Amino acid sequence: MSNITLKKIAEELKLSPSTVSRSLRDSHEISQETKDRVRALVAKLDFQPNPHASSLRKNKSKTIAVIIPEIENNFFVQVLNGIEEIAQKNGYHVLIYITHENYQREVDILHMLRSGRVDGIMISVASSTTNFEHLTAYVELGVPLVFFDRVCEIMDAPCVTTDDAQAAFEATEHLIKTGCSKIAFLSLDGNLSISSRRRSGYLEALKQYGLLNNKIIVECCLDDEATRQKIRSLFLRENKPDAIFTAIEKFSITTYEVCKELQIKIPEQVKMISFSNLTAASLFNPSLSAIIQPAYGIGRESADILFRLIDRKKLLPTQKKVIIPSHLVIRESSPVQQIVL
Amino acid sequence: MSNITLKKIAEELKLSPSTVSRSLRDSHEISQETKDRVRALVAKLDFQPNPHASSLRKNKSKTIAVIIPEIENNFFVQVLNGIEEIAQKNGYHVLIYITHENYQREVDILHMLRSGRVDGIMISVASSTTNFEHLTAYVELGVPLVFFDRVCEIMDAPCVTTDDAQAAFEATEHLIKTGCSKIAFLSLDGNLSISSRRRSGYLEALKQYGLLNNKIIVECCLDDEATRQKIRSLFLRENKPDAIFTAIEKFSITTYEVCKELQIKIPEQVKMISFSNLTAASLFNPSLSAIIQPAYGIGRESADILFRLIDRKKLLPTQKKVIIPSHLVIRESSPVQQIVL
Repeated sequence: MSNITLKKIAEELKLSPSTVSRSLRDSHEISQETKDRVRALVAKLDFQPNPHASSLRKNKSKTIAVIIPEIENNFFVQVLNGIEEIAQKNGYHVLIYITHENYQREVDILHMLRSGRVDGIMISVASSTTNFEHLTAYVELGVPLVFFDRVCEIMDAPCVTTDDAQAAFEATEHLIKTGCSKIAFLSLDGNLSISSRRRSGYLEALKQYGLLNNKIIVECCLDDEATRQKIRSLFLRENKPDAIFTAIEKFSITTYEVCKELQIKIPEQVKMISFSNLTAASLFNPSLSAIIQPAYGIGRESADILFRLIDRKKLLPTQKKVIIPSHLVIRESSPVQQIVL
Repeated sequence: MSNITLKKIAEELKLSPSTVSRSLRDSHEISQETKDRVRALVAKLDFQPNPHASSLRKNKSKTIAVIIPEIENNFFVQVLNGIEEIAQKNGYHVLIYITHENYQREVDILHMLRSGRVDGIMISVASSTTNFEHLTAYVELGVPLVFFDRVCEIMDAPCVTTDDAQAAFEATEHLIKTGCSKIAFLSLDGNLSISSRRRSGYLEALKQYGLLNNKIIVECCLDDEATRQKIRSLFLRENKPDAIFTAIEKFSITTYEVCKELQIKIPEQVKMISFSNLTAASLFNPSLSAIIQPAYGIGRESADILFRLIDRKKLLPTQKKVIIPSHLVIRESSPVQQIVL
C-alpha cells in the first residue's frame, strides 16, 4: 500500500487532492457524504497519510529545472518542447538552464538549485563534465532527478536515451553498403558516454565488414573555426575519406560549408550522414541523410518519469533505463541507388 | 553624482566592490592604505552609500528571467546566447521561460515571478498578447524590465529591436528590382507590433514602385499544416505570386517544402526571401536569400540595459529605444544577376 497517495485516492473518487485532504482533516467545508466516501476508500486501502510528504507537498514550487548543454541544437529544442508539454499537463513551470558545455557552470547551477526552488531536475550533462559529485549529492538526498541523452551511467538515477550505438552502426553499415571504405567519424571531444556509444557503433560496423584498419576518428570541439580547420585537413590529406559521418548536427553544417569552399561534391566525391534533428536538413543541397533522434519522445518520457518521482510513485522497472530508438532517413547525401554490396 | 556606485569606485581603484564596501565600514580586514584610497575617492566624488540600494543588493537573487515565445527559432536562440554572455560577466544566472505564443502562459509566468525570484525581466511578447496589464504592473513597481524584438511600444520600458520596416522595405525592393511584381508577404497572425512594422515596409516598397494594387498578404499561424495549406493555395490560385517574402523563418522552410511537393522551381518560377537567422540557410537548395537580424547584439544590448536598471544606473537617452540594423544577404533564391530595372 506504500504507493497509495492522496492524489491516487482523489483520482479514484474524482475529487481534488485538496478535498481529500480536507475530508481527512474533517473540515467543515466538506459535506458529510464526501467525507464518508473518502474514509471508506482510505479504510479499504489501508492508507496512512504521510505527514512528511504532506508538509513537503505544501512547499512545492511547482517548478522543475531542465539543464542542457546548449540550445543551438534542434535535438535539445525538441526535447524541451516534449518536457514542456508534460509539465504543462501537470501544472508545472519549466526553468531552463544552459551550461554551454562548461562543467563549472553546471556545478554553479546545481549549487543554486539547492535552495529548493525546484521540485525536480532533468539534466543532460556538459561535455566537460567528468566528475559527478555535484549530482550524486542530489540523488543521495532523494531529490527527483532524471538524466536524458547525455547521462551518467554509474549513478542510481533514471536515464532516458536513444539507441546511440545501434543507430551509429546502421548509419556506418549503410555507408559501407553504398561502397564507402574510408569513413571518417567526427565526434565531440570530451568523455561523454554518448560519444563513446556512438563511436562503438561506428567501430563495430567497420569490424564486421573488415574495415577496422581504415578507421578515421576526428575529435572536434565547439569552436567553429577549429572544427572547420580539422575538416579541411581531412580533405587535404593523402588518404582522403570517401564518407563523413558526424555525430553532432553542428559538425554536418560545417562539413557542408567546407565542401562548398573546397568544391568537393557531395555525394559524388564524399558521402555524408549525420545525427541531426534539423527539419531543414531535407532542404540542403544535397539533402542530408540523417539519424533522427526521438527528441520529443525523450523529453516526454523523461518528464513523465520525473513527475512519478516528484509524486513519490514507484517507477516501473522499464522506467529506470529507457531507450527510445532513433531512425535513419536516407537522402541525397548518401543515395541508396549506389548500393554496390 | 547619482550614478556613482560602489561598483564604479571599485572599478576606478581596481578593487573588488566588497573591498570598497568593507573599507567604508572600516573593516579590520582592510589595510589602512586601501581605506585611505577609497575614502579619498569617495570624498572627491561626493558619494553617499545608499542604504536602501545596499539592503536591496543583499537580497538579490543574482538571477534574471528571459521570457520568449518559442525556441524553434534561431533568432531567439542567438538572442539567448547574447544575453547569457552579458549575464555571465555580471555573475548572474539566466532563467529561460517559453510562452509558446500563449498569452495565458505569459500571464502565469509573470505572476510566478512576483515572488521576487529574479532581479530583472527581459521579454519578447507572445503573438496572442494584446493586453499588457500583466507587464504594466511590473513597470509601475519599478522592477527592471526590458523588451526585445516583440515589444510593447506604449509602455514606458526600454525596447531593443531591429529596423524591421526598413529591412522589409529593402527585401521587397530587391525582389521588385529582380523583376517581380506579384510579391506575396507571409506573416504571423496576431497583433504584434513587429508584424505590422514588417508589413508596413513591404507595403511602402510596393507603393513606391506603383505595385500597391498587387499586394498579397497572407496571415499564417504556428500550426504547420494550416500554414502549408495556405501556401499551397497561393500557388494553386489563378494569379500566382512570382515571389514569396516570409516574415518568419519557419514559414520559409514550409514554403521550400511546398515548392518541392508541387515541383515549383525556386528561383525560376518563384523567388524567395525571408527574415531568417538559420546558419544552414546558405546550404539550402537553392540557398535562401535572408534578412539576418542582429540577434546576438540584440541579446547583449538588452542585457546591458537590464543590468544598468538592476544596478540603478541611469540609462543613456539612446538606451530607451535601441534599434540595431539587420542586413540583407542575397543568395540563389533571388539572384541579383536577374536584375531588370
